[in-house]
Amino acid sequence: MTQTIHPIDVILHKRDGHVLTDAEIQVFIHALVERTLSRQLVTDAQIAAFLMAVFQRGLNPQELATLTDAMRHSGETFDAAPLHTFTVDKHSTGGVGDKTSLLVAPILAAAGLASPNSAGTPGICVPMISGRSLGHTGGTLDKLETIPGFNTQLTLDQFCQTLKKCGAALVGQTPRLVPADRILYALRDHTGTVESPFLICASIMSKKLAEDLKALVLDVKVGSGAFMPTYEQSKLLAQLMVETGEASGTRTVALLTNHDEPLGRFAGNWVEVWECVDILQNKRHPMSSDLIELSNILAGWMLHFAGHSATPEAGAKLSDEILLSGDAFKAWLRMVATQCGDVSVFHDSAAHHQPTASRTLTATHSGYLSSMDCKQVGWAVQRLGAGRAKPGDPVSAHAGIEMHAKLGDEIKTGQPLVTLFSEDASLLDEPEAMLRETLHIAPAPPQLKPLLREVIAKTSPTI
Amino acid sequence: MTQTIHPIDVILHKRDGHVLTDAEIQVFIHALVERTLSRQLVTDAQIAAFLMAVFQRGLNPQELATLTDAMRHSGETFDAAPLHTFTVDKHSTGGVGDKTSLLVAPILAAAGLASPNSAGTPGICVPMISGRSLGHTGGTLDKLETIPGFNTQLTLDQFCQTLKKCGAALVGQTPRLVPADRILYALRDHTGTVESPFLICASIMSKKLAEDLKALVLDVKVGSGAFMPTYEQSKLLAQLMVETGEASGTRTVALLTNHDEPLGRFAGNWVEVWECVDILQNKRHPMSSDLIELSNILAGWMLHFAGHSATPEAGAKLSDEILLSGDAFKAWLRMVATQCGDVSVFHDSAAHHQPTASRTLTATHSGYLSSMDCKQVGWAVQRLGAGRAKPGDPVSAHAGIEMHAKLGDEIKTGQPLVTLFSEDASLLDEPEAMLRETLHIAPAPPQLKPLLREVIAKTSPTI
Repeated sequence: MTQTIHPIDVILHKRDGHVLTDAEIQVFIHALVERTLSRQLVTDAQIAAFLMAVFQRGLNPQELATLTDAMRHSGETFDAAPLHTFTVDKHSTGGVGDKTSLLVAPILAAAGLASPNSAGTPGICVPMISGRSLGHTGGTLDKLETIPGFNTQLTLDQFCQTLKKCGAALVGQTPRLVPADRILYALRDHTGTVESPFLICASIMSKKLAEDLKALVLDVKVGSGAFMPTYEQSKLLAQLMVETGEASGTRTVALLTNHDEPLGRFAGNWVEVWECVDILQNKRHPMSSDLIELSNILAGWMLHFAGHSATPEAGAKLSDEILLSGDAFKAWLRMVATQCGDVSVFHDSAAHHQPTASRTLTATHSGYLSSMDCKQVGWAVQRLGAGRAKPGDPVSAHAGIEMHAKLGDEIKTGQPLVTLFSEDASLLDEPEAMLRETLHIAPAPPQLKPLLREVIAKTSPTI
Repeated sequence: MTQTIHPIDVILHKRDGHVLTDAEIQVFIHALVERTLSRQLVTDAQIAAFLMAVFQRGLNPQELATLTDAMRHSGETFDAAPLHTFTVDKHSTGGVGDKTSLLVAPILAAAGLASPNSAGTPGICVPMISGRSLGHTGGTLDKLETIPGFNTQLTLDQFCQTLKKCGAALVGQTPRLVPADRILYALRDHTGTVESPFLICASIMSKKLAEDLKALVLDVKVGSGAFMPTYEQSKLLAQLMVETGEASGTRTVALLTNHDEPLGRFAGNWVEVWECVDILQNKRHPMSSDLIELSNILAGWMLHFAGHSATPEAGAKLSDEILLSGDAFKAWLRMVATQCGDVSVFHDSAAHHQPTASRTLTATHSGYLSSMDCKQVGWAVQRLGAGRAKPGDPVSAHAGIEMHAKLGDEIKTGQPLVTLFSEDASLLDEPEAMLRETLHIAPAPPQLKPLLREVIAKTSPTI
């Protein structure tokens, strides 16, 4: 018996706390992309009412899996089957100075290039579709585009060719990839329905699963720089994403990682590429140690999923070896060149850093760097010009900050704490005040939390 | 300290279950009428998200009073002060064959005309702004407009003049009266946010209170013909409306009345006017007894509030006396003539009833008329052409039904149960089947409920 599903009925069912059928969810998502359903228009107002009803009532695992799947298939999707490779990616919920993608991708690419399949394709591929900076967090695309010539806008065919040659490709969303998410996100943003763990999960996972992944490692931030306000909410989001990924047949793990201060030495755009290139060239700055550690943990899980190590811990060790061997740097150069980037800038990364204004904040008294609102540090970076307040705004390549101390470090009066960079001297004052307000020096060292707080994996055996 | 209120923040606060401030509600309602707020557009999607959040979270008495008041003042309002009279009105949540307005208004007008103030204005006025038929219930305006020439579209000034001369005026909403309700209702209708007792209360009360009333009597239906699905939900709505009316300084009572069958003899448009004119002319048909009883109860409360009787019960007795005296009919003729209606049709109301097709349903077996789905009877009336499925559809003046039996009546095989009238013979079949399906004859008489089930009044003394 075929019965027409009207959008109003889908809204009513969710409003009243009923479980939506697969067909109801599929028809609604199809309708919002097509904007007609049974010759009825689905209006923005109806989508908004649906989103608020989902916000209030939630989704059960089956509904969430169906919603994610319907969004994933709402437009074109990447098909990795012709590559006969192990596709794996990582995703972070967003952080300040979080540049792990720029290390993890070449590490995995190096491992993939070293173990090609019978057709000569890398045995591991990282089909990484990334986003742009928004609010207090940076965006991988904005960072990559500071490399002269680097092209992040590949067609799906160019994407596939790059993966085949390089084992990794770092690109932006194509206009026809997961269009349902674009429509829903724009509406969520102005109807107060952003902070739903169910809607966040569907948004993230629909885009990641459109990469046709065998495995996915999620970095879910907790702490003062995290998007989610509490540990419990970050953990719920992690659980939902792992459940949804596994339900779609993708091995999925989520790592709850501490984010109470910027990750590594720099936060910005080119400065973050510079920091990663230094690491790839084995110039390890002491301030980068947490970045290296987290990158190895994430890459370790990905290598483990790909069968290159018996445990994630052994994978992390292997990851560090790949870094130290220089193979990751070779993979990086190959990928950047293939995506039309000018690799000559890596000969002297420091020289390519050309802010027109800078200022260094020093300690007014001695003690220990004890705490900061990491989100506020992120907003300071954004205000320097490195990020954007709303989609479509331009970003500055050379704005950003260099941290000179980590939480727990002993500080002497007059010692530099952070240097601010901008391409517009008038933009320094506000971020300086924001940073001065939030960097606290106390007489005693703070209680520090470990970088890796908790691992969320599927509890029952994989089917 | 003045702080700009953004629509998104109002949505977020209600979404998260906070109590909205008066300013937040006022600014939101002002914004949706003006459609700009602090140079930001308030979109349909934002209003829909707000409505769904209110649907899920509800409103406390203060929020509801403020919302109702903000809607009431969103456009032009009627100002009764220059009349120096006691303004009183009634409102029904909608019924099948419910034509009490056409009796109550002239009864109160007669009482008002008999007790003018020093300026010669009636001591009581009924400034009744009514609606049109929608769904399974009829509309007072559609009924009145079957009187040749009758004009329901008065300006506020003409409205005031009619009240001054006649003690009552029965009109439609002006385009600029309570525009916020029009915007919200259109959105609620297609976003699944109609059935919220809070939003229903604000919609009804904003329009009624815009009449600048001293007192208001609400007829809240319960039973199979009621809009609200359960007794408890009708009672909650009644309580909210009484609370909101009293909060605005209007004496308010709600009567929960049984509605398991059509009220009176006819349901339709002209046929309902005819039934009322017969009663006003003291031609009391046995099938009209429940209609007369309910009209006297409602008018009794209104006369009591106006100080014309010591109790509502004494008011009901006074109301019946006014009917029997012929004074209500005189007031009716004066009002109809002032609103340009041709009163000559009342010389022979039956002759003005001119359906082009009719059919009578008879009993297939003997017993007692035991039950019916009164809502389905209402839908049958609508399908005959008397009502409309959506706003703006035309209605037929002469379509409708005549009931020949009441619940509990003893029925003999072959006895007529209901006669269907239409202006299009092809429209008879479906309503006939609907009525045949729902009119049940059982071997034993049913347990009948009293017409007046419960009175909801303010419990604490009036301030």
